Amino acid sequence: MSAPEIERLIGLLSKLPALGPRSARRAVLYLLNKRESHFAPLIEAMHQVLDNISACPVCGNMDTTVPCAICQNESRNQRQVCVVQDVADLWALERAGAFKGVYHVLGGVLSALDGIGPEELKIQELVDRVVNQNVSEVVLALPATIEGQATVHYLSDRLADLNVTVSMLSRGVPVGGELDYLDDGTLQMAFNARRRLNT
Amino acid sequence: MSAPEIERLIGLLSKLPALGPRSARRAVLYLLNKRESHFAPLIEAMHQVLDNISACPVCGNMDTTVPCAICQNESRNQRQVCVVQDVADLWALERAGAFKGVYHVLGGVLSALDGIGPEELKIQELVDRVVNQNVSEVVLALPATIEGQATVHYLSDRLADLNVTVSMLSRGVPVGGELDYLDDGTLQMAFNARRRLNT
Repeated sequence: MSAPEIERLIGLLSKLPALGPRSARRAVLYLLNKRESHFAPLIEAMHQVLDNISACPVCGNMDTTVPCAICQNESRNQRQVCVVQDVADLWALERAGAFKGVYHVLGGVLSALDGIGPEELKIQELVDRVVNQNVSEVVLALPATIEGQATVHYLSDRLADLNVTVSMLSRGVPVGGELDYLDDGTLQMAFNARRRLNT
Repeated sequence: MSAPEIERLIGLLSKLPALGPRSARRAVLYLLNKRESHFAPLIEAMHQVLDNISACPVCGNMDTTVPCAICQNESRNQRQVCVVQDVADLWALERAGAFKGVYHVLGGVLSALDGIGPEELKIQELVDRVVNQNVSEVVLALPATIEGQATVHYLSDRLADLNVTVSMLSRGVPVGGELDYLDDGTLQMAFNARRRLNT
């Protein structure tokens, strides 16, 4: 149809998680209409990221420095480690500003269906970190899915004999959540984990 | 939050028509996990497109050659010109294989709301082409929207005194369309433009 250069770019773009063939095609045409203002700067920005960003060998975060800025930040509590599924979740917690310790990117969650066992995840690295770096608390900030829960159970077993506090994020009604729109599982969980207000 | 290089790339990606900030962030992380297999080839493919693709001076199509392959193809009917809103619509018609003439990319449709008048579109260029190149038919393949229809009326007026057939795409029930799911406008149009089957 269109030139092979364009088809090849559309093919590569459409494999990105958020884009299909149609939106990739629209993106390419958009860029061709904004050569100087958008297309050339985008290519330059991609070069910068490809050349300068790497995974932190300590926590797995993506950053320009090795170790990453969070691992190097002495004002953060280096003995409190928050375990996340991936870097996107790490960044989400950073945006929320909820946590002032350091992270450990697991690289996924256990999933028998997808053939992801403990060996595929950075679990041994987490245990080594807890043992060698005198970690005081491990916060398991994993997704509230079946696989995420299975991983929480597995990790709390693996960490049980070590001298470390293990915690997980609370479950319940999200902020702004209308009960009417919540799924049954969340409602049951929130009801069972209800907090007493008087004493 | 994350490194400025990453934030800049996310910012540029999220301005693409199909991506928001969240999907741009997911795309960047995906690429950082596929450096050699996907990220580097994507940058290279973008370079190729930026360096080699330009707008055809005759019809407005995007291609490697000047004029484009369609305008140069002598087996296509160079006297039959199909007018489209943009290059995406041109490619859609090419994928459908419905047309063996040449194209004219208008660059949009008339829209009082968006301040797009005849001067903003390649309308004079179309008239010149019809006059100078002995065009036999102009097919108006414009969107079936209010603005698209207004543009069809405007163009058929502008072309009325020239010795050229002017046509537009038919309107009606799309292939596979369930009447129950169609909007009222399409149903009315399809009813009013019904075809008699016996004679």
